[in-house]
Amino acid sequence: MIFSELLQQAQNIAAISHSRIGVERESQRVSLNGKLAVTNHPNVLGSRQFHPYIRTDFAETQLEIVTPVVNTVNDLFRWLAALHDVTYQSMPANEMLWPLSMPPELPIRDDEIKLAKLPDFQGVLYRRYLARIYGRRKQMISGLHFNFEFPTVLVEELYQHQSEVTDFKCFKNILYLKTARNYLHYRWLITYLFGASPVAESNYFESNDEQPQTEVRSIRNSKFGYCNKNNVQVSFESLQTYFADIETQIREGHLIKEKEFYSPIRLRRSEQTIDQQASVDYLELRNIDINPFERYGVSENQIVFLELFMLFMLWTDEKETSNDWIMAGDQINNEVALESPLTPTRYRTNGLKIIDLMKRMAQQLDLKGYERVLQQAKNGLTDVAKTISGRMVKQLMTINQSVFATANGLENRKVITQIPYQLNGFTNMELSTQILMFDAIQKGITVDVIDENDQLLKLQLSHQIEYVKNGNMTSRDSYIVPLIMKNKTATKKILTTSGFNAPAGVEFISMNMALAAYPRFMGNPIVIKPQSANYGRGVTVFKLSPSLVDYSQAIRRAFAECSTVLVESFIAGPEYRFLVIDDKVKAVLLRIPANVTGDGHHTVKQLVAIKNQSVLRGLNDRTPLTKISLGMVEQMTLKSQQFTVDSIPMSGQRIYLRKNSNISSGGDSVDVTDQIDFTYKEKAAAAVKCLGAKICGIDLIIPDRSVPVSDHESYSIIEANYNPMMDMHCYPYKGQKHRVTADVLEFLFPQLNDL
Amino acid sequence: MIFSELLQQAQNIAAISHSRIGVERESQRVSLNGKLAVTNHPNVLGSRQFHPYIRTDFAETQLEIVTPVVNTVNDLFRWLAALHDVTYQSMPANEMLWPLSMPPELPIRDDEIKLAKLPDFQGVLYRRYLARIYGRRKQMISGLHFNFEFPTVLVEELYQHQSEVTDFKCFKNILYLKTARNYLHYRWLITYLFGASPVAESNYFESNDEQPQTEVRSIRNSKFGYCNKNNVQVSFESLQTYFADIETQIREGHLIKEKEFYSPIRLRRSEQTIDQQASVDYLELRNIDINPFERYGVSENQIVFLELFMLFMLWTDEKETSNDWIMAGDQINNEVALESPLTPTRYRTNGLKIIDLMKRMAQQLDLKGYERVLQQAKNGLTDVAKTISGRMVKQLMTINQSVFATANGLENRKVITQIPYQLNGFTNMELSTQILMFDAIQKGITVDVIDENDQLLKLQLSHQIEYVKNGNMTSRDSYIVPLIMKNKTATKKILTTSGFNAPAGVEFISMNMALAAYPRFMGNPIVIKPQSANYGRGVTVFKLSPSLVDYSQAIRRAFAECSTVLVESFIAGPEYRFLVIDDKVKAVLLRIPANVTGDGHHTVKQLVAIKNQSVLRGLNDRTPLTKISLGMVEQMTLKSQQFTVDSIPMSGQRIYLRKNSNISSGGDSVDVTDQIDFTYKEKAAAAVKCLGAKICGIDLIIPDRSVPVSDHESYSIIEANYNPMMDMHCYPYKGQKHRVTADVLEFLFPQLNDL
Repeated sequence: MIFSELLQQAQNIAAISHSRIGVERESQRVSLNGKLAVTNHPNVLGSRQFHPYIRTDFAETQLEIVTPVVNTVNDLFRWLAALHDVTYQSMPANEMLWPLSMPPELPIRDDEIKLAKLPDFQGVLYRRYLARIYGRRKQMISGLHFNFEFPTVLVEELYQHQSEVTDFKCFKNILYLKTARNYLHYRWLITYLFGASPVAESNYFESNDEQPQTEVRSIRNSKFGYCNKNNVQVSFESLQTYFADIETQIREGHLIKEKEFYSPIRLRRSEQTIDQQASVDYLELRNIDINPFERYGVSENQIVFLELFMLFMLWTDEKETSNDWIMAGDQINNEVALESPLTPTRYRTNGLKIIDLMKRMAQQLDLKGYERVLQQAKNGLTDVAKTISGRMVKQLMTINQSVFATANGLENRKVITQIPYQLNGFTNMELSTQILMFDAIQKGITVDVIDENDQLLKLQLSHQIEYVKNGNMTSRDSYIVPLIMKNKTATKKILTTSGFNAPAGVEFISMNMALAAYPRFMGNPIVIKPQSANYGRGVTVFKLSPSLVDYSQAIRRAFAECSTVLVESFIAGPEYRFLVIDDKVKAVLLRIPANVTGDGHHTVKQLVAIKNQSVLRGLNDRTPLTKISLGMVEQMTLKSQQFTVDSIPMSGQRIYLRKNSNISSGGDSVDVTDQIDFTYKEKAAAAVKCLGAKICGIDLIIPDRSVPVSDHESYSIIEANYNPMMDMHCYPYKGQKHRVTADVLEFLFPQLNDL
Repeated sequence: MIFSELLQQAQNIAAISHSRIGVERESQRVSLNGKLAVTNHPNVLGSRQFHPYIRTDFAETQLEIVTPVVNTVNDLFRWLAALHDVTYQSMPANEMLWPLSMPPELPIRDDEIKLAKLPDFQGVLYRRYLARIYGRRKQMISGLHFNFEFPTVLVEELYQHQSEVTDFKCFKNILYLKTARNYLHYRWLITYLFGASPVAESNYFESNDEQPQTEVRSIRNSKFGYCNKNNVQVSFESLQTYFADIETQIREGHLIKEKEFYSPIRLRRSEQTIDQQASVDYLELRNIDINPFERYGVSENQIVFLELFMLFMLWTDEKETSNDWIMAGDQINNEVALESPLTPTRYRTNGLKIIDLMKRMAQQLDLKGYERVLQQAKNGLTDVAKTISGRMVKQLMTINQSVFATANGLENRKVITQIPYQLNGFTNMELSTQILMFDAIQKGITVDVIDENDQLLKLQLSHQIEYVKNGNMTSRDSYIVPLIMKNKTATKKILTTSGFNAPAGVEFISMNMALAAYPRFMGNPIVIKPQSANYGRGVTVFKLSPSLVDYSQAIRRAFAECSTVLVESFIAGPEYRFLVIDDKVKAVLLRIPANVTGDGHHTVKQLVAIKNQSVLRGLNDRTPLTKISLGMVEQMTLKSQQFTVDSIPMSGQRIYLRKNSNISSGGDSVDVTDQIDFTYKEKAAAAVKCLGAKICGIDLIIPDRSVPVSDHESYSIIEANYNPMMDMHCYPYKGQKHRVTADVLEFLFPQLNDL
């Protein structure tokens, strides 16, 4: 079968950039000065037994980050970013990830290298076996595994373009085996370009170990690295021989299980059984060293290069019988791995030829976007300083590797944890969703972003699937409840019928009728608001009687938001947001309208600019607080207090820039969950229950929160919100943080409490 | 206490037009030629024992319509309209309501007047007792009871303006007792104006009964009418004497229970216990005759007059001690009731004086809107032909009362049942909601319109409360499900992941990217649609490859509806809507795009006009089908078939005016529930279950509905709709009707099946 011909016939060839890919990245947890951590795997990461993203490998300190399978390099790096973020924020503050494949200095005593404390005894036994066979030190090496599957549409099309093989599974096996064999033959080029384990730290090699005497390109990919004993030989001739050989190795006691076969490439099936009728579904590349210059251990360009390289492995024909072809590859690879990183490789000409053939293939297949990575590979071949090991060893001339690694680790840690409330990789989503997603990943819930613009997530734990939108909309609430709450009149009707206190009001469905009704409200403090709008849009508060002009303007503003407008009595007093989940108040915030406090020197404008510098303040629901604007509404509010933006308030004088207290219009959030009399919490929870809601933000005016609820005057329910902001409770302006997103997850998956 | 002074101080006096009012209207069921019905109370009305709206009174034929308590005359008549509509449509087609207080000709044999067949034996025993004491014939008389409660804000304000009484309940009792005593004194004026029982039909009086010899104003309100024996005397001096007297009457065996006290006015409490500490909460006026000229037995003007009359009863001072005052009233009333309807009353001057005083009160209290009813009352006093009994007796000069009543009854029946799919009184709501409301009323579920513009209903059966929006959104669906379905991409992702077939597609979030993608779709049949729009808005179907111009136009139209647009493969074949409720397919409709069938004579334009004449076609979801438009889209569709609106299609030739089959764009609905292979129903129900929905309309393209589902080619899921139209299944263009609204109610209230 001549795959290069089949590939040239393929319409779907461009889909190669949508191959299914995933990464597993191992790292040692270390202290901030680069010593192996002595702590256990972080408890907050839940159970390692089923965690889909963050697990432990051989040792308790050896953390493994596993991305989901994705279709683009971009998505892969979003997940790497997110998983590293969660990992860093789940570790103790004085720990970081070691950025090298080679472990940091190891303890002198073997038993100080702790095996991973897995809950399942089989797992522990397996690690004890590995420690006995390979030694604990060898097992401390870390790598990056790259899972690669050709796009299904492409494989299906290639199958259709040929007639030799009449079984699709069989065709797939042929395709992946050819790719794997070629990879084994040509992988030395990857070792050359991406090798990144030139030297070992203290106590990696035992004194009697055979070991390289100078710096090399990749200890890990050489015979001194992490490999099976020499007697383990597995043929890649066919799937049958591959499995038969592995079985023989197990039967003869050379391997304990299939996964002990440390080949640089593994044939993988979606279902984890050894079955000679099974098909290869994807390949696992296991020979990538951790790239110390990259925050996530690998660069996007490396992955793009690997995708094209895998296509080339399918394209190019083998020149020898499979065993010879692979053995030749093994030999060259070992040679290249042990070359000095500062000298050109003996195989430079071959390498340049491969790159040239890859380039020609890309041209013949009309593939765009690979020029840069091909050029980089070429540069690496002509200038060793442009290989990773070359770059490393140049630096190691002035500092030792441990200092180099510690510095890089610290820098990674700083960048990854810079904005702690965000979830790296998904910062374009709303903050509430980012935080919920963070918590889900941390707890080991599988997350699938169903629609990014819609903030729609699919969560799965074991067999239970839950969908969540905006971090707060779930299957736990019934459909009708938000429809009721959307309608402020209906909400009030239901609440007051049940004996709760809500401000009296009138509803208008015509602007003219509302304008004509001015005399009814003249002389009274009122609030004008659209019936169904959100985030305080179109709301005007008149703490004193409005003038006809102001009233008319406010009515028009409200009608611009909704065709029904309410005019309600204004109830004086501070406004509190109660977040209720499953009949329990989880957090209470006092929301204070946008304001600045004078210092006697700065103008209002300057004070606003200073306050807006906070990393917590931003725009569009991507931060826990919102930047204060200086628009029309703010200027009018200033004017009503005889201020302008250029006034200089006295020291300690608080100036308000809005009348409404929404966080989205620059308000401050002050957590008072533990400072408010419990009777208000009871009242809020009861009101939410009366509305039938399960996840709800309910707003109460409370003149004096320290006095228990007595009569109707002691509180007034302003609004019930079916889409409450979650992030403001997680990161308030002042006061205690409340992780209400985690409460939502525990509500959806109560079994989390038992894990 | 001088109530006129208190009233003059009241700010809230205008609230009198928002008094809490309700009506109970009794009627005999009769055949279309005016004979007493021999059928049982309609079974479809469910259990009379708890039915809040439609019950039986004394006899099985004596139906009682009870409105809920409302705040405006307008609402009262909406409910009267709705309840009469449901009543008429629940009765056999050959029955109607007798429009008179006096019953139609009664059977000669007493036992042919069937007592109401109540399920509770106590109720049956009570009716047997009444039959024994008063005779079955007397009990066959029907009346209209008017429940009246002064607005709470007004009563509370009056209480605050006085200082004599320091207990609010006590004040309310004084207020209502004064009103009641005055009503008993002045009620003769109501008898004069509204009396409407001049003559009895055959067999009402027994031969030895004392009876009027000529026509009178109101037999029912005279001593020949429906009243207690003379020895039943109850004092209205105070609440204490009232209850004490009733208790004595019961103890002494003159009354069997409180409700046998047939006073023209009753003091009513919200809680039905005799408790001397209780307060009067409202008054029940029991002396109103059925007005034979009004469809619902009473006119809006009568109710408006009664509201003002009740206020006057509170305003005007009593001139004698209570017993004398009431006795004087009783005497005048009996006198007026027995006057000839064609002669002026002896009390005309007094009557005119009362009207004048009412007018002056209205002026002093600055009450608007009562001029007309006061003038009408004045006219009645000066011209007997303008009283109801006067009008009746004038007509009875040429036809007998039975013919008169039958003709009026037939006319009422015709008007009430004219548009059978509507619910009279609520025709401004969407049709799906009207039909659901109809069904709820019929089944005896209490309905409260929470928000009319929002199609939001509160339903209550016993202690269970359910809210329903649009007739299909309920607590049975979870919040997240419609949010998923709103997003067509997410829906498709979930369905295809679970193995269902849905057309392949691409999603665009930028118009330019979508426009640039034209080459990808060129040559293929496609559908362009907004991701989240509804009712087929912004959807364009290209059954053949689109031209660039048409493609661009369609993309722009779709982006006008939503910021995300899908381009999907077009799957050829007819489209079916499956309505799924609680995992079961309740109805399947074939929807055919707007079309006309030629007759060889009329133009397309004329054929459309003829088709649009159907009473089933209208606009804005108020009819089961939509009028066909002749706009841009229709003209383009015609053009693509080489037609214009002026073409004359051949006889039998079907011309399509749209490509999309939505009912809201003029399509025809053809029920095929029993004609479609059951495997499609299984597939539809499974897909809805997969999405987690409970009430859902799901659309499938099915090339051949008679062949069972075989492979993926045999169906394709186009869309899942979380707000499915219900009415189109209830009233399809062709085929079997399916009352899916009733299915929703039985889903919400499964106990309905046990009743």
